Amino acid sequence: MYKTGKDIRNAIRKEEWTSSTSGQAGGCVQANLCILPGDWAYDFLLFAQRNPKPCPLVEVGDRGEYLTKQIADGGDIRTDIPRYYIYKDGVKSEEVLNLKDLWQDDFVYFLLGCSFSFEQALLSAGLEVRNITEGRNVPMYITNIMCRDAGRFVNVPMVVSMRPFTPENARKAAEVTRFYPAVHGSPVHIGDPAEIGIKDISTPDFGDPVTIKEGEVPAFWACGVTPQMAVMMARPPLMISHAPGHMFVGDIQDREFGI
Amino acid sequence: MYKTGKDIRNAIRKEEWTSSTSGQAGGCVQANLCILPGDWAYDFLLFAQRNPKPCPLVEVGDRGEYLTKQIADGGDIRTDIPRYYIYKDGVKSEEVLNLKDLWQDDFVYFLLGCSFSFEQALLSAGLEVRNITEGRNVPMYITNIMCRDAGRFVNVPMVVSMRPFTPENARKAAEVTRFYPAVHGSPVHIGDPAEIGIKDISTPDFGDPVTIKEGEVPAFWACGVTPQMAVMMARPPLMISHAPGHMFVGDIQDREFGI
Repeated sequence: MYKTGKDIRNAIRKEEWTSSTSGQAGGCVQANLCILPGDWAYDFLLFAQRNPKPCPLVEVGDRGEYLTKQIADGGDIRTDIPRYYIYKDGVKSEEVLNLKDLWQDDFVYFLLGCSFSFEQALLSAGLEVRNITEGRNVPMYITNIMCRDAGRFVNVPMVVSMRPFTPENARKAAEVTRFYPAVHGSPVHIGDPAEIGIKDISTPDFGDPVTIKEGEVPAFWACGVTPQMAVMMARPPLMISHAPGHMFVGDIQDREFGI
Repeated sequence: MYKTGKDIRNAIRKEEWTSSTSGQAGGCVQANLCILPGDWAYDFLLFAQRNPKPCPLVEVGDRGEYLTKQIADGGDIRTDIPRYYIYKDGVKSEEVLNLKDLWQDDFVYFLLGCSFSFEQALLSAGLEVRNITEGRNVPMYITNIMCRDAGRFVNVPMVVSMRPFTPENARKAAEVTRFYPAVHGSPVHIGDPAEIGIKDISTPDFGDPVTIKEGEVPAFWACGVTPQMAVMMARPPLMISHAPGHMFVGDIQDREFGI
């Protein structure tokens, strides 16, 4: 178990750690990665600006820059993520442990906040987070809520994650997470899944199903898979992301994302 | 007195209203305008992403688009602002009532939240806002807090607005405004002006001085003049802004910017 973001980044950089970052460096921010060629960066930045709930940007690099400044001091985007997925024309083509040979001068990296940050806040508020209790990936669903278009990113449906609560705890969870606008904020919907176009709550589009107990209601939050979906739909010649669960671990603390 | 954003925008469009929008369409969002040629848009968008407190973007147009969608339905950026300033190479060259003859296919408009929105919230919380009481422009100061660089926008000092309160009310004002991260959020500093590089609080760099009473402390908020200053320092060939106080008035309500 690594205690700090710097510790685990060092181990990842040396490829001593190539597994999921879940549960590591407790309290430190973990972020989703998206790397795009320079001529796709404007459209993606605009898409994120117009869709802040599913696309909470926490750091954007200069063109060609691979060192982080804001969420970690001198993190290296080419090496400090345990496992990368390479997408060509929107299709996954390869999985690699570093980008040393793949890095291009025109690459722009985007780091996006992830729900790990607000799940910590939910736990701290004494709420049970079902996917954590059951040791599963959070269930995620494609909805009929459409994102705002931006450039070549068009007709993108919002993907949401779901956590079940009693109605009272769902209200509490909404209260807690609205203080975290930088990491998805308050739920986009609480209650009937059909209202946001989800036909069968027991078969998520991504992740694992979790138990919804008698009397519980599902609460849905905008999810960071949305921008990945946007990019896969737009099919840029090249896109690089983290492998699911294999995140960038920062120096700053989750709680710093609270207002 | 116009009651709604749509009413005053119609009057402005016909050039029946060419004055300040201050106090008009109470409760409706008012926004700062910045228009840049397309090849400057990425740098500005990135500057705003990296400096959200002074640059709270509320809507960004597609390249060449002049109709608004988000903060107002079908507002026309070319005509719905009472008075525009034209800057060439960072220097003000002209003042016009509309952009009908000046609009270019590559223009990108940026609308930014303004402190009018959180001042409403302060008043609603029962706090006195001194510049409103005294009927003056809020005093603004150039500080030694440096913005994060982005592209050609480098070495830009943050500009702040100042409102004085008793220490207790300053804490209250901070509490109220932190719920408005989309319009500058909580203060960047409360107390000794020298700590943020302000030499003489009685001579603001922009706006008017206001009375600071015995026992009061100054509270400083990031200010929308910062991005204007960034643009003037970077000297793009062309930039268009609203004339001070002559804002874009939206349909949505100030309170919708609260979390």
